[in-house]
Amino acid sequence: MLVVMHSHATEEQVRAVCDRIESLGYKALPVPGAGRTAVCITGNSGPLETGTLEGMAGVVECIPVSKPYKLVSRDVKEEDTVVRIATPLGDVFFGGTQVAMVAGPCAVETPKQAFAVAERVQKSGARLFRGGAYKPRTSPYSFQGLGEPGLKILAEVRDRYGLGIVTEAIDNESLDLVEKYADVIQIGARNMQNFSLLKRAGHSKKPVLLKRGMSATLDEFLMAAEYVMSEGNYNVILCERGVRTFSDHTRNTLDLSMIPAVQRRSHLPIVVDPSHGTGKRDKVLPLSRAAVAVGADGLLVEVHNDPDRALSDGMQSILPDEFDELPREVRQIAGVLKRTIN
Amino acid sequence: MLVVMHSHATEEQVRAVCDRIESLGYKALPVPGAGRTAVCITGNSGPLETGTLEGMAGVVECIPVSKPYKLVSRDVKEEDTVVRIATPLGDVFFGGTQVAMVAGPCAVETPKQAFAVAERVQKSGARLFRGGAYKPRTSPYSFQGLGEPGLKILAEVRDRYGLGIVTEAIDNESLDLVEKYADVIQIGARNMQNFSLLKRAGHSKKPVLLKRGMSATLDEFLMAAEYVMSEGNYNVILCERGVRTFSDHTRNTLDLSMIPAVQRRSHLPIVVDPSHGTGKRDKVLPLSRAAVAVGADGLLVEVHNDPDRALSDGMQSILPDEFDELPREVRQIAGVLKRTIN
Amino acid sequence: MLVVMHSHATEEQVRAVCDRIESLGYKALPVPGAGRTAVCITGNSGPLETGTLEGMAGVVECIPVSKPYKLVSRDVKEEDTVVRIATPLGDVFFGGTQVAMVAGPCAVETPKQAFAVAERVQKSGARLFRGGAYKPRTSPYSFQGLGEPGLKILAEVRDRYGLGIVTEAIDNESLDLVEKYADVIQIGARNMQNFSLLKRAGHSKKPVLLKRGMSATLDEFLMAAEYVMSEGNYNVILCERGVRTFSDHTRNTLDLSMIPAVQRRSHLPIVVDPSHGTGKRDKVLPLSRAAVAVGADGLLVEVHNDPDRALSDGMQSILPDEFDELPREVRQIAGVLKRTIN
Amino acid sequence: MLVVMHSHATEEQVRAVCDRIESLGYKALPVPGAGRTAVCITGNSGPLETGTLEGMAGVVECIPVSKPYKLVSRDVKEEDTVVRIATPLGDVFFGGTQVAMVAGPCAVETPKQAFAVAERVQKSGARLFRGGAYKPRTSPYSFQGLGEPGLKILAEVRDRYGLGIVTEAIDNESLDLVEKYADVIQIGARNMQNFSLLKRAGHSKKPVLLKRGMSATLDEFLMAAEYVMSEGNYNVILCERGVRTFSDHTRNTLDLSMIPAVQRRSHLPIVVDPSHGTGKRDKVLPLSRAAVAVGADGLLVEVHNDPDRALSDGMQSILPDEFDELPREVRQIAGVLKRTIN
Repeated sequence: MLVVMHSHATEEQVRAVCDRIESLGYKALPVPGAGRTAVCITGNSGPLETGTLEGMAGVVECIPVSKPYKLVSRDVKEEDTVVRIATPLGDVFFGGTQVAMVAGPCAVETPKQAFAVAERVQKSGARLFRGGAYKPRTSPYSFQGLGEPGLKILAEVRDRYGLGIVTEAIDNESLDLVEKYADVIQIGARNMQNFSLLKRAGHSKKPVLLKRGMSATLDEFLMAAEYVMSEGNYNVILCERGVRTFSDHTRNTLDLSMIPAVQRRSHLPIVVDPSHGTGKRDKVLPLSRAAVAVGADGLLVEVHNDPDRALSDGMQSILPDEFDELPREVRQIAGVLKRTIN
Repeated sequence: MLVVMHSHATEEQVRAVCDRIESLGYKALPVPGAGRTAVCITGNSGPLETGTLEGMAGVVECIPVSKPYKLVSRDVKEEDTVVRIATPLGDVFFGGTQVAMVAGPCAVETPKQAFAVAERVQKSGARLFRGGAYKPRTSPYSFQGLGEPGLKILAEVRDRYGLGIVTEAIDNESLDLVEKYADVIQIGARNMQNFSLLKRAGHSKKPVLLKRGMSATLDEFLMAAEYVMSEGNYNVILCERGVRTFSDHTRNTLDLSMIPAVQRRSHLPIVVDPSHGTGKRDKVLPLSRAAVAVGADGLLVEVHNDPDRALSDGMQSILPDEFDELPREVRQIAGVLKRTIN
Repeated sequence: MLVVMHSHATEEQVRAVCDRIESLGYKALPVPGAGRTAVCITGNSGPLETGTLEGMAGVVECIPVSKPYKLVSRDVKEEDTVVRIATPLGDVFFGGTQVAMVAGPCAVETPKQAFAVAERVQKSGARLFRGGAYKPRTSPYSFQGLGEPGLKILAEVRDRYGLGIVTEAIDNESLDLVEKYADVIQIGARNMQNFSLLKRAGHSKKPVLLKRGMSATLDEFLMAAEYVMSEGNYNVILCERGVRTFSDHTRNTLDLSMIPAVQRRSHLPIVVDPSHGTGKRDKVLPLSRAAVAVGADGLLVEVHNDPDRALSDGMQSILPDEFDELPREVRQIAGVLKRTIN
Repeated sequence: MLVVMHSHATEEQVRAVCDRIESLGYKALPVPGAGRTAVCITGNSGPLETGTLEGMAGVVECIPVSKPYKLVSRDVKEEDTVVRIATPLGDVFFGGTQVAMVAGPCAVETPKQAFAVAERVQKSGARLFRGGAYKPRTSPYSFQGLGEPGLKILAEVRDRYGLGIVTEAIDNESLDLVEKYADVIQIGARNMQNFSLLKRAGHSKKPVLLKRGMSATLDEFLMAAEYVMSEGNYNVILCERGVRTFSDHTRNTLDLSMIPAVQRRSHLPIVVDPSHGTGKRDKVLPLSRAAVAVGADGLLVEVHNDPDRALSDGMQSILPDEFDELPREVRQIAGVLKRTIN
């Protein structure tokens, strides 16, 4: 923490700030600048509460310095974390030289729909299937997912098509069930700071795919992962899915710079969801290419066999035929980065 | 829903769009414009999933029109909802001619701290006390609240000082307890779209104070209230507490236009939290005045007797002496709008 | 500037950073923290270019500390600046105990329209008239203003109704003319960082009303004023007019916390434009009350006698009858802050 | 334009809205929905001013439908525009199968610096050189560019190294000179809505590279291009360079979805500036790959031979050695999209 003083702050004012800092149990180190003095606070073991410091005479502002995350940080673990998912068709890795493809409908609607999509994405090369049994919807009157029957359909998708299952939990009750049926527990953007749910996921043995909140900063995103890890679950996969901005030509603004930014600070793998990230079918393929080119460790893509009649997010789902093309282009771009698909 | 066609869209393309709409069970009404044609979709009873419409030949974009909320809307109930809170010192009303003052520390830390603040804010005229026993914190290593012992301290505040209690629930477990000890259940900004929690709050007999999410639009905010109401709890108080923008001179950007905007669409009362809304002590008083001037039905203000040593949010808490001044100025401004405090 | 090092940065890495800093002509002061070291850079007389420092081994990030503004700052001048505008009906002051009312149509359209509005707002108590002769419009096909004939109409408004004139300049050519006809030169939001125009305004003898850009931070806003002042024109009035955010219930998000934020850092007066700030007629009155309550030094309000047929911004213009009510309510709120209108 | 009525709006209210619309010279077409009525306005030839419609009894809101742009639109010209730049080393094309590389320092500082960078980027394969002689800087005390002497250095770069020149104009005066010395006139983000400058650029014979403003929507971006085209200059190259959001891990948030969004609406070419788009050296290479993968028609990259001592933007400039690598990776990714570099 750095306390910046006014240029005309008196020596007494600087001293009073130092005294206050030391009375709080920290050390104060005044740093005289060209025009003004700043006071560094050291001796703290975590983030500081600065209380009324900012209100003291002569103080302009307080600037936080230390980053509060630990387990997620490369400071603690320099080499990349690789999360392994065992599927009937073989292991899939997030975070190594592979680019993992996760595909499937927004929501599981019927066995027929799920199987139709699963068959096609498996043929196109995906090894992981996504599909929601619990859907957080803006309206209470929208389709909320099938619940446990939906999870059972997903389990059957694994049995029939050999695909690993990624599906969302929205509260402690659904997490108990998701944990039982799925291979990866997804925490959605709206729950990125549902700390109670994050802690529960931290007690699971299953890997967690954690989506960035709609207005989460890099620090908040990493701190959400820290919640999961601090409870003992180190298998966390981050997911960029677009953020909310003034920009209105897409549903969200996909922030691909997040991928190298996470990779610089953290050892955790990070994937991209171009379907939610854009909310538009015709943007999914170009942004998938871009995501792999920027260095993402995987893609989450919504595929629906009949998007017109999809019970949710039809506007951003692509058709199985369109999905066929995606791994083809993506594979070549992955090759430029010396990576392979899945 | 309105489907806007390209100016050079052919008659066949317009017809294909109409056919698709009708095959989905809706009615299509083409509206020829000066330069281009648009197709109105009617016959839907709720929000539409437009699936691949946007991807059809000749289509520029799909624009949603209907608002999906019902119970929160003035369409359903024209007169203002007034939420009554019975306190030992008398009833407090949200939504009528009163402006309700809610004051107290960010977190309940000790009985001594809670009582010290309660005594002062009661003397300054507040009838409702706020203080968190469950704190959603960005870091897992920050103080997370005292839990049930904190709720017991709050219950004692009610007994000793006659103040009604407003406190936050963060999951179903804590809501069970908050419901037991408090007079108003607060749902925080990070949980505004924790739909599982909203539904649980909808089953409660206690009023719910629902904070706007950090990047929630007006529609999403009202839909979150709709979740609570659709489960049977009609006593919902909305709360504007600032949103996340590029603007960095305050912790959040307090969006006071939300108050008349809510009042136009909905019959529910709405209050303002200038403490979280700015994150800066010296902004709390001016923004409190502004909130009452714009027409807010109440204020939520953080007051701490020793902000320097506060376990959370010290930077935005004001001192009891500063709080003394607040109701004085606010009362006069309320008077201009023919309202009274509490 | 503070250079934050990784916790596992080696002594050599810290030393290399210090050496680089000193080779650039600054002083480096390493500050050891609990977990990691930071290096303060001092000895610079202005903002620093940090070049490749952030790319050096062991560096996490560079945090700027010094504020680059000078003349606008309370560091340089502690007492409030009061800008005086002489009008035929008497002096109007921005920045003292007065709250200045500026009212008029978005654009000057005809003498008849201008006079009709002027007569009414003068009767309601305004002493300054606003109206654009040069209109920056999103579309090249929209009405762009009358140009110099519009300025002449404004001059006649001054003669007939005794009102001072505030009008916008959009380039050096129009500024030459605006300077000649008007009492205050307005620089619009879109031109807040048109530095060439700011410098030209800095050479004028007339006061400048500078609007905040749509995505300008506090620092950028003050630096734009610094451009004007650094050329010798110290009569700058700032204007908050809403910023662009994700929030879509108003055209812009009016950021009233900017008023106390500017007042803390700068001695310059600041006013509020609730018409552009909300873009909605029914929000103008409540936000005007809020602006005065928060401490603004004045209001800029769009008033049109026939908003349905206004050539621009009809949606946000209020009627003369509505404007009548505004100064009444605002006067009482100003009174609470011990201020008067005009 | 669509006027949405309340569900309990009376027939009289709907009729009054229709009457008002027709009194304004348009046609009104009421569209009854399931729960409420909407009124379509047709018969307008451009964007509508809706005046007080939104304030009429029974009206919920007014939703604009027509897009106001013409010349930039695929409605008017379906095939892609290809902008050709003749350089001593051969033609460069924006908008066809080529991906154009533009590289050089943020600002021209000295002949030595400009030549050193030019020599290197030419060897790495670039055919266009960028470098500012006029720099719009946040602070009036920062380096503002060399002016015409800088343009002369750029002309010498063309002569010595055969590179075409792209450089920024900031006002009418500098545009007169830039037009004389350069091959492409750049309009910067801060001037995207400096309509006076856009019109002047529209009179030029030289192609214009128009950067997206920091908070410009797709529509505003295209309308800015429309300003240039409506004056007769059809050679416009758009440039995505990041927008301002809450996200703070990069200087701006690079919005790569803008590329397919522009390509859907407009026939104009669009390039990406990953240097300003991220503001961080280590993000330039990954985001350059992503930009080409998403389908951009070119890249603008800042390269400096001594970023530590750069007079501006050193933090985001890469070294010539780093730039060597960029065209290599980018060429392979371009190949996946069946494109070539330059």
